[in-house]
Amino acid sequence: GRVRPVAKELSQAQIERYADATGDHNPIHVDEAFARTTPLGGTVAHGMLVLAAISEMMAASFGEAWLTGGKLKVRFRGPARPGDTITASAQETPRDGPGLVYVVECRNQRGEVLINGTAEVPSRD
Amino acid sequence: GRVRPVAKELSQAQIERYADATGDHNPIHVDEAFARTTPLGGTVAHGMLVLAAISEMMAASFGEAWLTGGKLKVRFRGPARPGDTITASAQETPRDGPGLVYVVECRNQRGEVLINGTAEVPSRD
Repeated sequence: GRVRPVAKELSQAQIERYADATGDHNPIHVDEAFARTTPLGGTVAHGMLVLAAISEMMAASFGEAWLTGGKLKVRFRGPARPGDTITASAQETPRDGPGLVYVVECRNQRGEVLINGTAEVPSRD
Repeated sequence: GRVRPVAKELSQAQIERYADATGDHNPIHVDEAFARTTPLGGTVAHGMLVLAAISEMMAASFGEAWLTGGKLKVRFRGPARPGDTITASAQETPRDGPGLVYVVECRNQRGEVLINGTAEVPSRD
């Protein structure tokens, strides 16, 4: 079935809310003075905050089947930064056997791939 | 190298903070009255909130190498519920070629596997 893309803009405030919600206060995400001294050159979003857009998209289409039996195979390709707008999308691919397989990705507003991979949903029965 | 486990207790308040931080307000996570009417029988944490413990663990040990080149292959095995304490852990496995591969999992306080799979970190040079 068709899966509707999910787009969202990231802000430093949202990254900080995410850090509070998950308890992950790694300074590369929340300490701008520190982050500027690293090779990344500034704060970046948690990889899971970006991946969350992919999971939200799959959960919106598949609900419990995704939450309790989904499979995810992804690679982190590059960081998302405060101010970026990220868009998760999915493309169904043919497969042998039960369930559905999607090629999934998350890109920024410049079209750069931040995460890509596949997501698999078990058949419902 | 050795990776230190990450444990955390989940609460409904934390799930709601996570929903606000990610913008994912699916009622299965935040609407207790609705969630009780579903096969899950109550609210459950976002899968990515559970997976975040695995990513946090990897980022704490590998930093930028994880955030910009990590590979993750996981399956969602069961839901985490408010009140659960989840523990992410990793076990290095031998591989041919560059980089490091870990078998990773997240379990609840009853030892039930919520997520399992592998995480791969590129070599640093």
